[in-house]
Amino acid sequence: MNETALKPGFLSRSVGPLHINLDRQLYGEGHVQSFQLSEANQSLSAFNQKLFEGGVVNPTENRPASHWALRSTAHTEQTGQSAQLMINGRDELVLVRQVQNHMEAFVEEVRSGRYTTPDGVPYENLLHLGIGGSDLGPRLLNDVFAKLELAEAPALNIQFAANVDFHEMKAALAALNPKTTLVVIASKSFSTRETLHNAQHIFKWLDAAGPQYRAKALVAATCKPSKAVEFGVDPQRVFEFSESVGGRYSLWGPVSIGIRMVHGNAAFNELLKGAALIDQHVRESEASQCIPTLLAMSDLYNLEHGVASLMLSPYDSRLSLLSPYLQQLWMESLGKGVDKNGKVLNKPACPILWGDVGTNGQHAFFQMLHQSRIASSVELIVVVHPNHDEVQSHQVLLSHALAQSEAFSVGRLNAETELNNPEINFRSCPGKRPVQMVFLDSLTPYSLGALLCMWEHRTAALAALQNINPFDQWGVELGKGIAEQLEQSVPPGHAPAENPVTAHLIEHFLYQAGTRE
Amino acid sequence: MNETALKPGFLSRSVGPLHINLDRQLYGEGHVQSFQLSEANQSLSAFNQKLFEGGVVNPTENRPASHWALRSTAHTEQTGQSAQLMINGRDELVLVRQVQNHMEAFVEEVRSGRYTTPDGVPYENLLHLGIGGSDLGPRLLNDVFAKLELAEAPALNIQFAANVDFHEMKAALAALNPKTTLVVIASKSFSTRETLHNAQHIFKWLDAAGPQYRAKALVAATCKPSKAVEFGVDPQRVFEFSESVGGRYSLWGPVSIGIRMVHGNAAFNELLKGAALIDQHVRESEASQCIPTLLAMSDLYNLEHGVASLMLSPYDSRLSLLSPYLQQLWMESLGKGVDKNGKVLNKPACPILWGDVGTNGQHAFFQMLHQSRIASSVELIVVVHPNHDEVQSHQVLLSHALAQSEAFSVGRLNAETELNNPEINFRSCPGKRPVQMVFLDSLTPYSLGALLCMWEHRTAALAALQNINPFDQWGVELGKGIAEQLEQSVPPGHAPAENPVTAHLIEHFLYQAGTRE
Repeated sequence: MNETALKPGFLSRSVGPLHINLDRQLYGEGHVQSFQLSEANQSLSAFNQKLFEGGVVNPTENRPASHWALRSTAHTEQTGQSAQLMINGRDELVLVRQVQNHMEAFVEEVRSGRYTTPDGVPYENLLHLGIGGSDLGPRLLNDVFAKLELAEAPALNIQFAANVDFHEMKAALAALNPKTTLVVIASKSFSTRETLHNAQHIFKWLDAAGPQYRAKALVAATCKPSKAVEFGVDPQRVFEFSESVGGRYSLWGPVSIGIRMVHGNAAFNELLKGAALIDQHVRESEASQCIPTLLAMSDLYNLEHGVASLMLSPYDSRLSLLSPYLQQLWMESLGKGVDKNGKVLNKPACPILWGDVGTNGQHAFFQMLHQSRIASSVELIVVVHPNHDEVQSHQVLLSHALAQSEAFSVGRLNAETELNNPEINFRSCPGKRPVQMVFLDSLTPYSLGALLCMWEHRTAALAALQNINPFDQWGVELGKGIAEQLEQSVPPGHAPAENPVTAHLIEHFLYQAGTRE
Repeated sequence: MNETALKPGFLSRSVGPLHINLDRQLYGEGHVQSFQLSEANQSLSAFNQKLFEGGVVNPTENRPASHWALRSTAHTEQTGQSAQLMINGRDELVLVRQVQNHMEAFVEEVRSGRYTTPDGVPYENLLHLGIGGSDLGPRLLNDVFAKLELAEAPALNIQFAANVDFHEMKAALAALNPKTTLVVIASKSFSTRETLHNAQHIFKWLDAAGPQYRAKALVAATCKPSKAVEFGVDPQRVFEFSESVGGRYSLWGPVSIGIRMVHGNAAFNELLKGAALIDQHVRESEASQCIPTLLAMSDLYNLEHGVASLMLSPYDSRLSLLSPYLQQLWMESLGKGVDKNGKVLNKPACPILWGDVGTNGQHAFFQMLHQSRIASSVELIVVVHPNHDEVQSHQVLLSHALAQSEAFSVGRLNAETELNNPEINFRSCPGKRPVQMVFLDSLTPYSLGALLCMWEHRTAALAALQNINPFDQWGVELGKGIAEQLEQSVPPGHAPAENPVTAHLIEHFLYQAGTRE
């Protein structure tokens, strides 16, 4: 990377509401051109074709990945295409459309006040229970939508409880009335420890208000409708999605039914349309024009050059939950130790993704990015049209984003001498941090859908380029298994844990808790 | 690290409400013992002595670091010690006590309703303006205190605005009434671009309600009282702290006056007492018993062994803002490229600090920590006594924290064969991730003060062990300087930026904004 040698704009690309600029990345035009003809590009094309044909792209679970089908109705409407997605003898697109229609109808019932409480009044509140992929997506969508001043006003007060830590639940319940609260239980497997534990508590909370409240309040989003029904949810309010939809890719479907209820079907369908636009872009673009591919190529190039951190900073305070959402998508998908052949990888398959909104981050941790010996890339998101009239504020904000982009890339040696002078070295910034910028036309459900879908394809592309599986997560099984055992060892008087350090920690805990001397 | 060879508890230490366990760290008992006699330990002792004597520990700005003095009144009361801290011929402890008394009196006026609006009614709202060190601390304290059910109920509705992004301000103002809102302007230099820009907007907002509101509403926390007065703040409501208090170490003093007003002096003074306990612990303990020192030794050992990430997960949803707060303290203090002699470092001086609350993180990014080739250490915080009666929830939560600690450390090879079998390698977890656990007795202002102060000393110790300056932040100057210039280039029709890529990006922005063809 040598700024003086650059042709500005040589790595700028646009699609719909998204524009990216990679001029300040480590790789260059030549790398992009040679990639077009590479085997890696062929593997990626083959992967994408298999993805959209419903082939098995998740071999350890012997499954396709059909999350994109959840937005295919919007896509189909837009392009006039019709399609089939046959998985295990069933057309997933038929299921998706049925469930979408069912959701839209129920959402209208709730929003219009026709679906009433047992007392005959409209519901006023919604409690969303779910964790990980059943939590981060809906939470992000709610947070952004609430700040957009959408045409349809929020119809319900929404609260979230994900953690088994009861402090979170306690705070959520303090803002809710059991007589007017709908409860969405979102769990792909309908066996998630935290979610079912919390749901059991909510049953008691609802029942304490009267035995009539529970039945009408419950709504489920799951791949296991029979388990939800067994748990007590009326089959009419169980919204199914396919086993082939990974939890962290599931916000497009029933998992977000609470968001539809609060913010309306119209906004949500705009989100799907924005996402479908990117699906189409990925299906139709060659590598050198395909935004997710260009980003994944850059991510891989950086990894190969020792850059194991990616700091993401949206210069828009409405996107403060974007990083937590993407952390799951990115690091759960790409945080693998072996490739699809079981071969042990010799480096991380993704950088750590972290960050906070700008300009706040500039006053928090940008210091480290500018001067430390840490190798990090930097991604800055700018929204072109704000949703306010304070032109000067927006220009200051933009100036800061552009200034950081330049500073990270160009750096500054000792201004006074251009030499390595120990007495003033504390002022120097080495520069050469790989930077990319993303411009969003404006922040809307449509552009958010495009942004999130771009990240899904970028994630999958980075996996495909390294021949790893972005759709499984076997690494989380070990901790789950040990936790199940330890639940038997923690109550005072029970059998000690097998592991000596764990046994010591439990003893210490009980001592500190005052339950043991 | 070899779990079978461990003496469980060999690296457990307690002070006040804090307990740490380092049994599963990479370093061992021998390392701790030999450190006691090392030169590094002597340098660290010398650094701490200089810190508490008011010597120049911040050489690039030729300043002492006197943030600890902000909690010294509580400390002095506790221990019966009296002390002086002479800096530039002035006893800082006298200033601290004067300002504390002044703050306490004003806070009582506000909370009791004796300090009234021009309409003669009590203030109901508070808007806190500040960014970075003038934002993250107060925001964390407010978030935790609000969830503690303190003896004194919150007296005011508080909102924060840090970002120059006007979307944040717009959301804050929507919850406020200009006739009943106090405005705290927190800026060490009283020249922070974002804060003064936002304050100017607030002046218009107050004045629009009537010319009488501005004068009584303004409160300032700063090292430059004359600038605050010039800006229009009544000298009676300007609360000064010393130039020797770094922004990211400043939450103990006037910067948090809004927290005192909302949550009361009593809770805040408990916070100071908890912190003072740790100051005393650092003054009096030898290295092998000193918790911040043991942690910093471990952090350094891990860095020397290539571990450049530290994932922090509090298993308590009330601590969700802890990581953002600590990111600034840690990475702005330690994110340096040269040591105090100007010698260029050959590795990062701190790991990237990131994370989210457990169990949520388990369902988001723990996958990567368990299986990826990334080298990360893991720090888990557990609160022993919860603030609720749901015993089973708390046991499940604890079981998960302990299970993760064990899983990260012990790992699992292919359970079926213990061999490197490609067909089942996707299940294996290598283990050997360095893990430490922190137990807090309960979450209170006192224990929070101890926890935060522990992190301050750990940060400073890690800096001292590497001979770097934890109190400056020269790396942020470059971006600030470029932003000032670019503010002149962004409005349409102005001079283009000098840097060709930046000029291109501005052109693109104006094109996308529709202000240029």
